[in-house]
Formats: sequence, structure tokens, C-alpha cells
Amino acid sequence: MTTLSDTICALATPPGVGGLAVVRCSGSTAFDVCDTRFRGRVTLNEADDHTIHYGWWNVNDVRIDSVTCSVFRAPNSYTGEHVVEIGCHGGPIIVEQIITSLIEAGARLAEPGEFTKRAFLNRKLDLTQVEAVADLIHAQSRVGAQTAARQLAGGFTKRLAGLREHLLNVCGLLELELDFSEEDVEFVDRTALLAALDEGITIAERLAASAASAEILRSGLQVAVVGYPNAGKSSLFNAMLSRERAIVSDVPGTTRDYLEETLFVDGYCIRLIDTAGIRSSDDVIEMQGVRLTKSLVEQSNMVLIVNDASLGHGHSEALASDLASVTGSRPMLTVQNKIDLVADDNKTTAEGDICVSAVRGTGLSALRDALSEVARKNGDVIADVLVNARQASLLRSLASSLQQASAGIQEGRSMDFVAVDVRTAIRHLGDIAGVTWSPDILETIFSRFCIGK
Amino acid sequence: MTTLSDTICALATPPGVGGLAVVRCSGSTAFDVCDTRFRGRVTLNEADDHTIHYGWWNVNDVRIDSVTCSVFRAPNSYTGEHVVEIGCHGGPIIVEQIITSLIEAGARLAEPGEFTKRAFLNRKLDLTQVEAVADLIHAQSRVGAQTAARQLAGGFTKRLAGLREHLLNVCGLLELELDFSEEDVEFVDRTALLAALDEGITIAERLAASAASAEILRSGLQVAVVGYPNAGKSSLFNAMLSRERAIVSDVPGTTRDYLEETLFVDGYCIRLIDTAGIRSSDDVIEMQGVRLTKSLVEQSNMVLIVNDASLGHGHSEALASDLASVTGSRPMLTVQNKIDLVADDNKTTAEGDICVSAVRGTGLSALRDALSEVARKNGDVIADVLVNARQASLLRSLASSLQQASAGIQEGRSMDFVAVDVRTAIRHLGDIAGVTWSPDILETIFSRFCIGK
Repeated sequence: MTTLSDTICALATPPGVGGLAVVRCSGSTAFDVCDTRFRGRVTLNEADDHTIHYGWWNVNDVRIDSVTCSVFRAPNSYTGEHVVEIGCHGGPIIVEQIITSLIEAGARLAEPGEFTKRAFLNRKLDLTQVEAVADLIHAQSRVGAQTAARQLAGGFTKRLAGLREHLLNVCGLLELELDFSEEDVEFVDRTALLAALDEGITIAERLAASAASAEILRSGLQVAVVGYPNAGKSSLFNAMLSRERAIVSDVPGTTRDYLEETLFVDGYCIRLIDTAGIRSSDDVIEMQGVRLTKSLVEQSNMVLIVNDASLGHGHSEALASDLASVTGSRPMLTVQNKIDLVADDNKTTAEGDICVSAVRGTGLSALRDALSEVARKNGDVIADVLVNARQASLLRSLASSLQQASAGIQEGRSMDFVAVDVRTAIRHLGDIAGVTWSPDILETIFSRFCIGK
Repeated sequence: MTTLSDTICALATPPGVGGLAVVRCSGSTAFDVCDTRFRGRVTLNEADDHTIHYGWWNVNDVRIDSVTCSVFRAPNSYTGEHVVEIGCHGGPIIVEQIITSLIEAGARLAEPGEFTKRAFLNRKLDLTQVEAVADLIHAQSRVGAQTAARQLAGGFTKRLAGLREHLLNVCGLLELELDFSEEDVEFVDRTALLAALDEGITIAERLAASAASAEILRSGLQVAVVGYPNAGKSSLFNAMLSRERAIVSDVPGTTRDYLEETLFVDGYCIRLIDTAGIRSSDDVIEMQGVRLTKSLVEQSNMVLIVNDASLGHGHSEALASDLASVTGSRPMLTVQNKIDLVADDNKTTAEGDICVSAVRGTGLSALRDALSEVARKNGDVIADVLVNARQASLLRSLASSLQQASAGIQEGRSMDFVAVDVRTAIRHLGDIAGVTWSPDILETIFSRFCIGK
């Protein structure tokens, strides 16, 4: 592990060509390092906090670029340290020269995520906020980004802060009771304690359960489009994407590989997966396709059954029962395709079925609305938290410790044991926010970051 | 053409994923537009010039991201207008939401280069500086970037400013003389005037002649690697690049297509072009290759003749005379390759030849030094100006007007004509810096810019 005392630098903006690039320099000597290169009206050491200074970046008396230097004085910066943000012209050669000159002046290249790691170690962000930063940058959808922003604003921390404070308080009182155990006093009201533990269990379980929804917000709702061959799945897939992505033909079994494309509906990210038609076949390649389809259904959040309505609406029910073993409790939606080929007096469908004509483009907006509705339901569980696997696992441990404490009280066990369970619960809470942490955890979290963040 | 009165916005940093992205908003209502979305301790309208403000970007009461807003008050900004630079997390979804919200609040998306165009129209940059910005961003080499930076610092303008002032002064006096022509007075000393015109001609011609060198700094020194088949050109090409780029074999004529790769030596960009071996051949594909080689030599700035030293050093002279019709006055350098196969007492070579063994890696640094030397000589002509085609053409017109004025004086022609020539010269000078300009010229120049610059 590198020490926090050195000064680090890196390109903060995406690499490439653009109007502007920003190189970030953070550490106790950030102003000194930059002042060896920057020529402006004042030195950065003398500059006021949160001010911007125009000047030239010089290397060996050669002007490299006209730049703006933004000055952030510790602790009022992203990292909590002295920070200079150098805004230069967005060309790779300029950026390379500036970074090289910073390193020559005594800074070193930052590791991936090191700016954010310093923000965490300097208590500018807790761990859930650090994780929100990564989610925000990599967000696939508007709703995902907005949820991550709320978590960055402290949504997660706020939800658990009350519980942690309450448990710390309870724990202190319980331990006090133990000190006075011979006098048989009760500092903690047992009924109130049980209620508080129950509330904690509810919060923890609800948050843990939201991890699946959070993953959908993070990576998108995966929708498997399945059906018998020639039901028009690929045509529907193309119609939804408004372009010719999948090869369509009248020959049943045209699609063998699966295709995945991303669709945005009402700010939600929906990953549509076009699959091979399901049927008994002797063709080896097709059989592989069908096996693949079943495995794709298993990985998906939702199944879209496409039926050729011109062959009768009932058809789709047979397929649904065919798939029942793999779909489980996943939401299913039946689409009656080729509705343009069905006579008007025959158009009665099962409730909830959506009638479309992929070829004519009719019914597609109703289908989009239905997908958006599923995504919304999935994403709405908790509006300001994107629980990830690390947090979910700690939340489940938290719930289990609280349950054990609750059971201990109800079974009349010694308060020694109950206090231990409550302490464990507090530790799990601390681990979530990063009040306590191990280097391994940090390494895992920051491996998701790029250099410059 | 769009008016300057509206407020524009665009992503200023390269697109993609990174720690930080900057969205720029410029125009008379930039503060008002941003204040509808930004929630910080103060409003941007109230904020001091060149200060940075931390807060949240809100859309319909939803927090989109935590941002810093940098405030630049007109005329102290890049464009000369009110400017807000919004620093947000570097995720595409966040950027898209911020730009959409700015457009909803009354800004419009900027056209390519529009920020810089406004800087020019508000006289923050002259045209040669505008062109330097584009050269700086797209620089291929350190030296090219540094020259562009000096031009941005006003190198070009400074070189011509004295001449323009002098000519304006002379012109005024000449016209005064014409008013008093009946009295036959001379306000302008003819000898001094001729000297000034001569100096102007020298400057203009020298600058115009530097356009070729500037193009080399801009795009790199193109070096054609030529030789007879099996001289080891591809091996040398790979050795210079330190990787296996070209397919090498002992079979003469292995390389048919040409390969181009970029090499950086001492801050110069060198574009090495590996060509097909030159020989008489009946193979149609190979004959095409040879024709292509000759055309590549014609387009190159320098020719590297690779000789198989084990076949005798004299070999290379025959090749040089073979190529003489196309090489013209281009610098040529002969490389004696496979020197490891030559007995020590046989290693005498022509002066200036460089002995290498591409296979063993010997002599490569001497070759690099020689290439660097050629690039340096080419790039050193004028150290603070990257003359482009537009400028070169105007400089040649300028020199020709000055020559005509000079000839007129020497031939004792009427001062009416001389004054017209001097005026024309002044106009050309103005066109170079953009004191005068046409919409067509601007369109051509700004077509090199991306959106956000």
C-alpha cells in the first residue's frame, strides 16, 4: 500500500481528442508541484480556495499549453487534500507532456481509483458513496444513474444511520446492565428493544432483497424473446430496435445464435435477447440453439413469449408450459404477433396479451409501455439505494445477528449473548459504510475504478 | 449563420467513461440557464468571476449528479461571453442528462468549433491562434504541439504585426503625398521604403516556405523504406518499431502491400513506410507493388535506402540511381543492413551510410539519431509558427504585392499604383490574422473542430 503523504496525478477526463482535458493533481505538495510549471498572475500556493487561474504550462521554459488551474485547498476538495485541476486543450500529446512534467516535479501517477480512495480515507465519502460513484459513472440507464446519484447523496447511509445509533445506544445500556447484573436492574426496556430489533431486521432484509432490482438498474432488464420457430421473434426484435439487427426470413429456424441489443424505454435500460425458436429438431446446430435459449431464459429477468397469432392464440399457452420448468417466477408477457393476418372477429386474446404486428409496426408502443412497467416495478423497490453483492451479503449477516439477538431475548437467554449479537450487528453496519474495513475489501471496490477517478 | 446572442452548450471533454467530464455553457444567459438546475450555496448569477462552486445538478427536483460549476464572467472567458463549466462524473448517461436539461432551460447544442468561433468573433483569438488551437489538439508529436502552443501564444501575429503597422504608416504617408502631388513633396523616404518592402518580402517568403516543414510537424516526417527485394526492409521496419508488424520471410518479394507505422524519436513523429522491394518481375501483383513504391517515394519527405551489405555495399548506389527520377531533392539515407554477415575487414562503407543489423538490433540507435536529425532540420525552420496552406497562399500573395510595389518604385511608376499595391499587401496581412474575413473562410477553418471546442 502506498502512503497518503505523496502527491498523485492523472488524467481525470476520458482519454481521446476533445476541446478540453483535465489533469488532476492531489496531495500535500500539489500546489508546490504545479507552481514549478504554471505561470499565471499569482502562484497557486497564494491562490484562494475554489478559484480558477489562467496561465501557461511551462516545461524547461517551453510553453506547453495555455491552461486554467482550479485550486481546491484541503479539506475542501474531492480527496480532502490540496488539489489542482489543470484544464488544458484536449489533445493526447499535451496531456502526456503535462503528466510527465508533474511526475518530474515530484508527483507520481495515481493508481486506479486512488483519488476516490483518498476521499474515502479522508472521510469525504463513506463506502456506499464510493460504490455509488462507480455506479454513477458506469450507469447504463437514466434511472440507474439517478438512483446512484441519490446513494451518492447519502441515501444508503441515512437509511442505516438511525439503526446504528439506536443499536449503539442499546448496546451501551445492555453492557451497563451486565456491570450491575447482581442488582438485577433493567436499563433497557425489553419490549422496546424487541421492536427496534424487528425494525432493523425489516430494513436489512428489505435492502438485501433489493439487490436483484439494483442489478437490473445497474445492468438493465434482461428480456428473453422466445417462441416457436417462425413466430416472428426476429422481426419483432428489429421492430423494437427500429433497425435491421437480426436476419429475418420466412424459413423457420433462421436465428441460431442469440442476439443481444439494448433498448432505452422511459429511462430504463432493457437488454432484449433474440433467441432461436424452440422446436424438436434433428439439426444439430438448431438443437444447440434451443438448449442455449433455455439457458438464456434462466439468466433473464423476464420472458417475452412471441406467438404467431395467425396460427391461433392458444399456441402460446403450450409454449409457456413447455418453458415452465425454466421460467420459474419470472414475469412473463405474451405477445400475439402477426395480428395483421388475423380476421377482425377472431382477435380476442387472453387478458394481458399484447397484440402487435412487427411487420406493420402496430402495437409496439403498448409493448414498450408494458416493458417499461416491468422495469419500473423492478427498479422501484428502493429509490435511493443500489444494493450490490457486497452490501447484500453484509445486510443478510446484519439481519441474522439481529434475529439471533431477538430470539435470545425471547428465549430468556443471558444478556451476555444478546449483547454480543448486537455488537456483531453493529460491526456489520460499520462494514457496510466502511467505518471498519479491510485492505482486501478496498482493493475489490477500487478495482472497478479507472485511473483518474 | 446563428446569432451570437443565444446561449450554447456542449460536452467539452472527449466522450467516453472517465472520472470527470466537463459540459461547457456559454452566452449572455449562461448563468440564468445553469441557475435553473444548479443547487449550491450561492447562485451562479451572484458568484464571483473565476470561482468554483460545489453543488447538485437537479432536474425536476431529482438530483442528477454532484457537480462543480466554474464561473467565468464576460469578457474574462474563453469565448469572451459568460461561461459556466460544469464538472460532473464522467459517465455518458450523466452528461446526456445535463445537456438535455440545459437545452430544456433555453440553451442550444453548440455547433462544431462554435466556442472557438465566438472567441474569434469576440477578438479573444486571431485566426492564426484559432488554427493553432486545432493544431494543438490534433498534434501528432511533442515538437508539433509545442510549436502550435507558441503560435497560440501569438507567435504568428507578433511576426507580422510590425510589418503591418509599418505598411499602414507608409500607406498613409503615400496617400498624403498624392493629395499634395502638385507640390511635388516626398513624405516617404524611397530608400527606407524599399528596404522595408524587401524585409517584408523576406519575412513573407520565409514563412510561406516553412509550410512544408510545418506540415511535417503537423503530420509527421514520412520516410519511405526502399530497397531491392530481400534486403531486409521489413526486418528493419519491425526492429525500428520493436515489434513484429510486417511479415518477414527469406522469400524475396514477401511484402506487396505497403505498411505504415508511426514512431516517435526525440519528440518528433516519424511515419515509416515499408515498401515492396524494387526489381524487374513478371509477377503482376509484384509489379503493382513496385509502381506503388515509386508513388510512395514521391509522397515522402525522406527516403531510406536499405542495402543488403552482405551482397556488397555498392549495391545501394545502383538503387539510388534507379530511384533518382522520383526522389528529386529529398533527403536520402543509406542503411547497410545485415552487417552481421559481413567480415570485419570488409566493413568500409560510404560516408554517411549507417550500418545496422536489423536481426541483431545493432546500429538502430544511430539510425534513430539520423532520422531525428532530419526531422529536427525540417522542423526547425521557424520555431513559433505552423504555417498552413491557407496562410502560405496569403503569404505568397503578400510577397507578390510587396514585390510589385518595390518594382513600381524602382521603375519610377506613379505612386498611385504603388499605394494600391501596399494596400493590397495590408489586406493580405489582415486576411491572415482574420482582421478581415469571409464566412467561407471561417466555415473551412471551423470544419476541423469538434463539437465542444
